[in-house]
Amino acid sequence: MTREEIAESFRALQDNICLQLEIADGGAKFEEDSWLRDDPVAGAGKGGGGRSRVIRNGQVLEKGGVNFSAVYGETPQGMLQKLQLQQADFFASGVSIVMHPKSPMVPIIHMNVRYFEMSNGVWWFGGGIDLTPHYVVKAQAAWFHQQLKQVCDRHDETYYTKFKKWADDYFYIPHRKESRGVGGIFFDRLSSEEQGGKEKLFGFVQDVGKAFAPIYTHLIELNKTLSYGQEELDWQRLRRGRYVEFNLVWDKGTKFGLDTEGRTESILMSLPPLAAWEYNYSPEAGSREAQTLELLQKDINWLAL
Amino acid sequence: MTREEIAESFRALQDNICLQLEIADGGAKFEEDSWLRDDPVAGAGKGGGGRSRVIRNGQVLEKGGVNFSAVYGETPQGMLQKLQLQQADFFASGVSIVMHPKSPMVPIIHMNVRYFEMSNGVWWFGGGIDLTPHYVVKAQAAWFHQQLKQVCDRHDETYYTKFKKWADDYFYIPHRKESRGVGGIFFDRLSSEEQGGKEKLFGFVQDVGKAFAPIYTHLIELNKTLSYGQEELDWQRLRRGRYVEFNLVWDKGTKFGLDTEGRTESILMSLPPLAAWEYNYSPEAGSREAQTLELLQKDINWLAL
Repeated sequence: MTREEIAESFRALQDNICLQLEIADGGAKFEEDSWLRDDPVAGAGKGGGGRSRVIRNGQVLEKGGVNFSAVYGETPQGMLQKLQLQQADFFASGVSIVMHPKSPMVPIIHMNVRYFEMSNGVWWFGGGIDLTPHYVVKAQAAWFHQQLKQVCDRHDETYYTKFKKWADDYFYIPHRKESRGVGGIFFDRLSSEEQGGKEKLFGFVQDVGKAFAPIYTHLIELNKTLSYGQEELDWQRLRRGRYVEFNLVWDKGTKFGLDTEGRTESILMSLPPLAAWEYNYSPEAGSREAQTLELLQKDINWLAL
Repeated sequence: MTREEIAESFRALQDNICLQLEIADGGAKFEEDSWLRDDPVAGAGKGGGGRSRVIRNGQVLEKGGVNFSAVYGETPQGMLQKLQLQQADFFASGVSIVMHPKSPMVPIIHMNVRYFEMSNGVWWFGGGIDLTPHYVVKAQAAWFHQQLKQVCDRHDETYYTKFKKWADDYFYIPHRKESRGVGGIFFDRLSSEEQGGKEKLFGFVQDVGKAFAPIYTHLIELNKTLSYGQEELDWQRLRRGRYVEFNLVWDKGTKFGLDTEGRTESILMSLPPLAAWEYNYSPEAGSREAQTLELLQKDINWLAL
């Protein structure tokens, strides 16, 4: 299995997900921007590139992006230092998604699958899916985790427990002492020295990618017709503010992208259309908003709720 | 001059500025939250504290904060490492301000003065003022810089040029290749070994603090009655989005505060009430918005425009 085959499968995944999201939205279509990466050594437009796809002002999806990229060149200095290497070429490909729905009753979702390799033979996969409801519905969070567990279990019975905990730790906002949402799964630097180990891991990562659209379109169907008013929209904007805080302060992928002069508009497509901040806001005790905050914590066993 | 005297002068500055801003606003009053800092060694509430003051939904000021703090304790590990010290107690006091006006025709402003000392005898002052108009008006930017130059010149004829450049470099958003606004002055770690050097620097810092309210209230008066509509409000929200990006991704003060478990609500009072992100937005060529973007660059000599 070559890196081109992996990138090709990610490209096909992007196509498939966009199609399913357009059907679920029932209104808007994705707009596409193809871009080329300037490589510091090879030159302008010679470092690979990507296809950014954005959907906006849909029936369901207010703003969202499904990005594919496959980039290569000399490994950035910061990364070489961390890996204690002098020089190495890298290749990285992935699909990255964030969807901000119009309705506060529909959750925000994020999915990412990625592959990285270097000319010294090192390679790994990473990825994950996590859900950020504006209002946490326990049964839906449990269903979401159940779906992820099924995907994991098909490949390795230890995955779900490990990757669920990894997501709890990763999608956490320390300065708020809050989780970004109800978690999901997160994994990074998955590698294997076994014969056939790479194929196995790639199979898992492909399955994570394929699980995304059916999961999210189901959650859209469950919630898209629920009624809401200004109160719910105000709360949605505050929760989107937290999403911005996580992505800009803590998310390693965003930081890496901005530090290494990635394509800013593609990296920051994860930000919501509109977000609010209110000083010292605290919802009324017992309200749906307060109940949601109580559930934005690590180490909740959603499957046992 | 003791650290208590410095802190006391900052506390008085906060009082004075809040009073002047309330008069300029003509509607809202500041709300105050006093808080105590938990010290990891001395214990809960034993590490100093502060007074956070927030104004909201005023005639002019939609959301803003004027924070005073005076905190002390064991120097955080990260800072000790940078300074190559084993152990030292620290004391830090300052006033920090961000104002987000309701009208897109009135600029956002930021001011900070601060003093830091350690038990090993090291001490310094820092601070600055910078202006972020949603629409840059050259004459007003020039007037703003003229005021800052006058403050600087009263103390040292080399200050304005140095600190103006420092602000250009500091208030810059690399991933957007844009300045946060029209700059101003910024300085950090000002220290002196001369006899009377500390008094002189403190005099300068006090003058910077005192300059803030007359400068901003004048800019409010000039712009507060200008008319605007949805187009200007939409642009204001996008510019506020950039303000969020700078503060959460690049601002060292915000990062330090969040990393060292400062009071989150006081640190993030700098964030706007409402901010927007639009994928790949670019204003029409020749529009006021496009003209503003052209002026959000480093190294503009505003005094010579």
